[in-house]
Amino acid sequence: MLDNIRLSTDETAVVIIDQTKLPGKTEYLRLTTAAQMREAIITLQVRGAPAIGIFAAYALYVLARSIPKKADFFGTLKELKNYLNGTRPTAVNLSYALERMLSVAKKAGSNREKVLRALGEECKRIQNEDIAVCRSIAEYALTLLKDDRGILTYCNAGPLATSRYGTALGGIFLGFERGYKFSVYCCETRPLMQGARLTAYELAEEGVNTTLICDNMASRVMSEGKIHACFVGCDRVAANGDTANKIGTSMVAVLAKHYKIPFYVFCPTSTLDMKCKSGRDIVIETRSDEEVHTGYFRERLAPRDVKIYNPAFDVTPANLITAIVTENGICRPPYEDSLKAISR
Amino acid sequence: MLDNIRLSTDETAVVIIDQTKLPGKTEYLRLTTAAQMREAIITLQVRGAPAIGIFAAYALYVLARSIPKKADFFGTLKELKNYLNGTRPTAVNLSYALERMLSVAKKAGSNREKVLRALGEECKRIQNEDIAVCRSIAEYALTLLKDDRGILTYCNAGPLATSRYGTALGGIFLGFERGYKFSVYCCETRPLMQGARLTAYELAEEGVNTTLICDNMASRVMSEGKIHACFVGCDRVAANGDTANKIGTSMVAVLAKHYKIPFYVFCPTSTLDMKCKSGRDIVIETRSDEEVHTGYFRERLAPRDVKIYNPAFDVTPANLITAIVTENGICRPPYEDSLKAISR
Repeated sequence: MLDNIRLSTDETAVVIIDQTKLPGKTEYLRLTTAAQMREAIITLQVRGAPAIGIFAAYALYVLARSIPKKADFFGTLKELKNYLNGTRPTAVNLSYALERMLSVAKKAGSNREKVLRALGEECKRIQNEDIAVCRSIAEYALTLLKDDRGILTYCNAGPLATSRYGTALGGIFLGFERGYKFSVYCCETRPLMQGARLTAYELAEEGVNTTLICDNMASRVMSEGKIHACFVGCDRVAANGDTANKIGTSMVAVLAKHYKIPFYVFCPTSTLDMKCKSGRDIVIETRSDEEVHTGYFRERLAPRDVKIYNPAFDVTPANLITAIVTENGICRPPYEDSLKAISR
Repeated sequence: MLDNIRLSTDETAVVIIDQTKLPGKTEYLRLTTAAQMREAIITLQVRGAPAIGIFAAYALYVLARSIPKKADFFGTLKELKNYLNGTRPTAVNLSYALERMLSVAKKAGSNREKVLRALGEECKRIQNEDIAVCRSIAEYALTLLKDDRGILTYCNAGPLATSRYGTALGGIFLGFERGYKFSVYCCETRPLMQGARLTAYELAEEGVNTTLICDNMASRVMSEGKIHACFVGCDRVAANGDTANKIGTSMVAVLAKHYKIPFYVFCPTSTLDMKCKSGRDIVIETRSDEEVHTGYFRERLAPRDVKIYNPAFDVTPANLITAIVTENGICRPPYEDSLKAISR
């Protein structure tokens, strides 16, 4: 599997695969400045809730190393943290990873070298934990599936969105390794086409039987009996189980309920936001008109003076979710209780 | 409004707006041969169930005029009819209009000039009827709407899909003329983007408050309370009310039911297929992989070896439809009875 986020050997840069170029080109970027790192998050060169967290932790470490000796180290570190944190409001992993880094730095005392060492260890720990977490989620996912099943996926919650295995795709990959014959239907995920560009790419690379559909075809494939489960990742889960994920996820959930197909959400416990009571408290990022108007198109398709509404996420209410699968176990309704029981 | 289908003055050609070029270019095509006409339907230069019917009628007339004097007139006419009819299996209007033309020809006797005159009159009658029908549908539609309403539309069932007013858009245009302040949300309609290219264009041209969304955003705008009714056209309605329309329509219907929003289907009675018992009997056309893979994109986005599923239509079951609005009145469940009562 692809090594999509890593520290350069000399630890002066974060090296990522530029996800905006996939699957056409596998291009690695070497990011050394705060502006480049912020830009990488905003333009989705790095994306996927867990991946953003890992990336931000590495980024903060690299930037901490470059804080001038004369500068106010902790003041600057906090500024850098806020600068990176302000990029994407919906994913909780970003702020979670950055908070964790800051807290480790504070605990390490006032010796700069000691603090840097602690930060260096912490960001690697965050990535290694993610790998272990995804593996554990995948094992739980596999208990939900039988052989020969049709699975509908949405957006991208595969290896590229994490650091390995992925969340929603983990069980599919693990099952495939163990000889399960899944048929995966992959929604293209407008406007940024993560399903077509990333999920279809990851699945096809490994040899999984994959069919790409437009998002509006999900109802038809479900009505034809081709789908036995829906697998999605998420960006933030509230304490009551309401789940923010890529725009369109709630559409899949409503359809799944209508066609009586189980709808599963996969996430590390770091995506749970127990301070957030319900979906109403989740800030939904709206993105530029141009993503819808032009985006990957050869030319603008709609007239220029037509308004665009481009929310990047939607909230799937808890009552449409069959189960939320984490590294600590499978949570079922009522989520107030089951999420509390497994969260850190 | 645009004059999208007409006979050339000398009646040797059908002149259409090339809908594949809209909204970037308003290009008129002058079609004189059977091959050009068939191609125009297949490549969607002319599209929309009623528009295809009108076009096919004009096409058959123009082609009838060019049948060599020595040829077997009725045999050739029937061959031409079958040649045009084989282009798109889902829309009933195509075969309806062609059958009507053939039947008129047969009734006109054996005098070639008399038959041609009858055919010429019939195709113009089909278009004029469509205009009257759309106007009547629009009046009925308006009885379903209040001022200041948010309406979600899908695909294109406007003037371009008919010959004027449109079916699903008719009520919106008529209301707008009468001072209603509607907010129309227009689903872009992947993969061929009829919503973005045609519906958004038609609405914006007239000055209607129009917002374009990706299809997967329909759930979110409904959940936000922005939508008070869904308006769609259709390609074929079975005797029990099951309705075939552009792929994704059943998604809108399921969402509308979930969010308790009325879902209305608009169509001329020529779209009713009382011989077709239910949706199970409707043939659904699947189209090329390339429409999804590349289509309007600058380049292929998904890997080449990923399979594509590209059904052009889906069937919305009658139980998800609040009412079916025709020129003869508004039909409500049970549709077996209400459709029978208003159909010809």
